[in-house]
Amino acid sequence: MSVTAAKGFRAAGVWAAIKGSGKPDLALIVSDHPASAAGIFSVNRFRGTDVELDVARLKATGGRMTAIVATSGYANTLTGAAGRRDAVAIGRAAARLLKIPEREILVSSTGAIGFRLPVPRIVRGLRKAVRVLAATKEAGQAAARGIMTTDTHPKLAETTFTCGGDVLTVGGIAKGVGMISPKMATTLVFITTDARIAPGALRGALVASCADTLNAITVDGQMSTNDSVIVLANGAASRRPLSGQGCGKFRGALHEVCGSLARQLVADGEGATRMIRVTVAGARTPREAEVAARAVADSALVKTMFYGRQPNWGRIAQALGACGVRFDPGRVAVRVGGLPAIRRGLLIKSPFEIYSRLAESEVPVEIELGAGRARASILTCDLSERYVRINAGYLS
Amino acid sequence: MSVTAAKGFRAAGVWAAIKGSGKPDLALIVSDHPASAAGIFSVNRFRGTDVELDVARLKATGGRMTAIVATSGYANTLTGAAGRRDAVAIGRAAARLLKIPEREILVSSTGAIGFRLPVPRIVRGLRKAVRVLAATKEAGQAAARGIMTTDTHPKLAETTFTCGGDVLTVGGIAKGVGMISPKMATTLVFITTDARIAPGALRGALVASCADTLNAITVDGQMSTNDSVIVLANGAASRRPLSGQGCGKFRGALHEVCGSLARQLVADGEGATRMIRVTVAGARTPREAEVAARAVADSALVKTMFYGRQPNWGRIAQALGACGVRFDPGRVAVRVGGLPAIRRGLLIKSPFEIYSRLAESEVPVEIELGAGRARASILTCDLSERYVRINAGYLS
Repeated sequence: MSVTAAKGFRAAGVWAAIKGSGKPDLALIVSDHPASAAGIFSVNRFRGTDVELDVARLKATGGRMTAIVATSGYANTLTGAAGRRDAVAIGRAAARLLKIPEREILVSSTGAIGFRLPVPRIVRGLRKAVRVLAATKEAGQAAARGIMTTDTHPKLAETTFTCGGDVLTVGGIAKGVGMISPKMATTLVFITTDARIAPGALRGALVASCADTLNAITVDGQMSTNDSVIVLANGAASRRPLSGQGCGKFRGALHEVCGSLARQLVADGEGATRMIRVTVAGARTPREAEVAARAVADSALVKTMFYGRQPNWGRIAQALGACGVRFDPGRVAVRVGGLPAIRRGLLIKSPFEIYSRLAESEVPVEIELGAGRARASILTCDLSERYVRINAGYLS
Repeated sequence: MSVTAAKGFRAAGVWAAIKGSGKPDLALIVSDHPASAAGIFSVNRFRGTDVELDVARLKATGGRMTAIVATSGYANTLTGAAGRRDAVAIGRAAARLLKIPEREILVSSTGAIGFRLPVPRIVRGLRKAVRVLAATKEAGQAAARGIMTTDTHPKLAETTFTCGGDVLTVGGIAKGVGMISPKMATTLVFITTDARIAPGALRGALVASCADTLNAITVDGQMSTNDSVIVLANGAASRRPLSGQGCGKFRGALHEVCGSLARQLVADGEGATRMIRVTVAGARTPREAEVAARAVADSALVKTMFYGRQPNWGRIAQALGACGVRFDPGRVAVRVGGLPAIRRGLLIKSPFEIYSRLAESEVPVEIELGAGRARASILTCDLSERYVRINAGYLS
């Protein structure tokens, strides 16, 4: 399943002694043959060393990759030239063990920023991983565990579609629970497919699929330095390259996998007890709709209100009013959990029913600004004491 | 002291039964004679009804006011035309009781948004307040208590200076512990002075004094709808209007009071255990310096790191790198608690001494971007479980 669901992919997840806990901390994903590859990466100015290397390799090969090595425990970021040498050494060791060209290896890391990776231990872990590489469901799950940090469970998704008689699969794994508010991607997401598709079309499909999924979520408004979404398409189940309708079906399948992983990331947000879907309609521009939706989704007061299940709608108004987006307060309407909360700029007293709506696992917040026709939607989670405890203690 | 320290001012703080707790919830500040007045107010689009009324009155009178009525428990915001009538009714009752023109009364309210104020109870409270009005230190403290919401203690400040043989005083009170991230002001701050100064000069002095004090703090990045800073200058201790050097001294005194109140607000931030002073230097523009400083000061990951006293400097880099400000990561230097944390874009391993520095009541974070010459400084506090508990439970 997940990254091993598509034909011609094997995976492994092992403990390389990066984490002291003995939990898996190394994931390896390998295509039997070179695959089309596309990636979307963090736009943080302090971008991870691995991210820089991957971007350069995708460019150099024109989007042709065979394997991904990902480690958890430390993010290879703010580590300078020594960190770059570490990333190259890890890729080189994987290439040697897998007997594939070094330039066809992508590397990723996640965890506490600014510490050197323990390269000798990672190389020993890689040897173990190559030995247990498998195309099984368990191997995909092990890989998903290998990239977890404070995640409470692995995130997996997959879907199939048919095209010209071929049954094609798209599957993926993801990690991420804090420092989530991507602009170009989200934490680590690896997707495999046995469809045959050119790197350019693959990249177009990935960008389109992320726009309203992995790029429209937030846990704490903090953009990671190492955000990476990588998709490998090895063509193992396609008799011919995708085109036209086939490409459309592939985009649908990729979108489904990205959407499922995005929801799983938010649901497992650090300390989260429920999800909140903030939709802003009636904005003057798409950009203003997104700014307004993010202002509400990232407001500490709105998030604690949902945690406490209090119908304290003034906090939604406060976040909207402060975000700099233009609207007439007298025209604003807000519905929470399907019930009116603000109408014509006036707070509506909620019926008792609101308490059961606020207790659901996902609560919709629908905002109409009455200023235009643009809309945006952001998926977020609530803010609990546990988020603070996790982040006050965890060197992440 | 505080608002009663300056000559010719009386104050009172009483329980008007707005709060169920029996704690003071109404403050009254009265000048013996009409005073020059200036105010800075929230720029939130959902601005409080009281704020709108005060702005109109300050304009209509050219900045001539005699009294301030402030209540805590509910913010008169998102209450529409009915809320406007309530605010006018409260001002009118105060005017009748104090025998002064209605237009010389300013009204303020703070607390949960969207609920009607209990006007009859407030009018009864006003009668009580007028009876106990006094120029004593205790009366000033009572007024400071009357505007508290989740504040754990009242905030008071005062200072004196001499000008042409006159001994002049500036004193103030403030409230505010959450929803603090002003753009034009902060929560409720009332300042009195017995200096004689024209409304225009008073406003100029207020704007200048707030720029790096009340406008440079954040608890949770949330701008209140009711932020108000109001200063009354009744001239009771000035034989002649301030000018030249006297104006300069007054600005210094006003700046001192604003600075003291700003520090008290942050120190009492909801759930705060310590303050963090984020200073960004070497930015391309003052605006970029402020954006970068606020990005670090408002980062949930940075704030929980300081709560947990962890030298997790990657989080500072992450917040800086994501904020959209232009700089070369390789030129960035950061010092925390006076010790190097990041140098030339590389994380520096901290000596053991860092743990005692992180335990201090105020920790400086000094950031050099190396991109220009502009700088900005923001005072914030850490983020603890108690912030979440307060805001999950409190209908504020």
